[in-house]
Amino acid sequence: MKLYNAAAPNPRRVRIFLAEKGLEIPMTDVDIMAGGSRTPEFLARNSLGECPVLELDNGTCIAESIAICRYLEALHPTPALFGTTPEEIGRIEMWNRRRELKLSDAVGTIALHTFDFFADRVKQVPAMAEAGRERSIRLLNWLDGELADGRPWVAGDDFSVADITGMTAMLLSDFTRVAIPDTATHVARWNAALRARPSWNA
Amino acid sequence: MKLYNAAAPNPRRVRIFLAEKGLEIPMTDVDIMAGGSRTPEFLARNSLGECPVLELDNGTCIAESIAICRYLEALHPTPALFGTTPEEIGRIEMWNRRRELKLSDAVGTIALHTFDFFADRVKQVPAMAEAGRERSIRLLNWLDGELADGRPWVAGDDFSVADITGMTAMLLSDFTRVAIPDTATHVARWNAALRARPSWNA
Repeated sequence: MKLYNAAAPNPRRVRIFLAEKGLEIPMTDVDIMAGGSRTPEFLARNSLGECPVLELDNGTCIAESIAICRYLEALHPTPALFGTTPEEIGRIEMWNRRRELKLSDAVGTIALHTFDFFADRVKQVPAMAEAGRERSIRLLNWLDGELADGRPWVAGDDFSVADITGMTAMLLSDFTRVAIPDTATHVARWNAALRARPSWNA
Repeated sequence: MKLYNAAAPNPRRVRIFLAEKGLEIPMTDVDIMAGGSRTPEFLARNSLGECPVLELDNGTCIAESIAICRYLEALHPTPALFGTTPEEIGRIEMWNRRRELKLSDAVGTIALHTFDFFADRVKQVPAMAEAGRERSIRLLNWLDGELADGRPWVAGDDFSVADITGMTAMLLSDFTRVAIPDTATHVARWNAALRARPSWNA
């Protein structure tokens, strides 16, 4: 198998997942800034022109970072990053989606509407970037209330894929200059714990 | 267990999933139009104030429709709607995300920026609704190319949760008046097959 990798948050999510699993797989770097994900060869692997893509030995290509992580989890179940009991599976999926569809989406909206890279992919509207910034702060404050019970990781006692999605959200927050509010001390604690993991630099 | 249900696409996704599994669980209807998901009692179950929520017998609440579906799949594995082999699991997750993060997101953007219901939840920008409409058509044409190999369901030979997510996307298309382009005959075939399933009316 081979991972088509790039310098971007979604490929990084897979790299962090691999590091947490202790797995190494061959990678090919795609220069997305230079149009490397828009070539006919790449589009044959993922017609949406997005990285990452995992190419299996039988030629099947799996796109979408979380789909790649689920494939790898099915092959290598330990350590379980998507949960094992029905309740863990449900809770981790809930938190993974909350991190992605809420916080990553809000912070990503700022990037989408301000970064030059996206100028030819979406209609950039300054008011949307501003709304994304307000929503990001609101969600960080909401998350702070959720983490106020003192649990170490976002879905409970164990580090999970929801924290990995949180890592990419916090990376995007760095890029878009969304600061954790001073009063959000529980988010600050969780954020520091994420950055202390060796996989942060994967 | 009890499902907090509402007249909206995400609760419907769980109801379709239950129908496809042949499961029945107790439901409580929440009147979201009248603020029923914003009461203190409801916010204690899901601090984001969104339906659906599955309350387990031990009091744990699982929000997010797909998280609820995954919990139910873990308890009732047959028929498998998230796949069983690693490759199926990866492929179905890829397609579920493509349906949700691409098509549902595009069509949902139209709703978000035009429906009165969302006026106090997001900053409504007419240009965003228009961009969502253009993107929806572009994605339906892209999907048509993907389904041109004649496969019956979006992730392959078997009906899966990715088709259920597709059902909610097509329902949202009805509400936002996004029509399938005349040339997208493969999407039209798939759309007709979805609407012919008994679970369509769940």
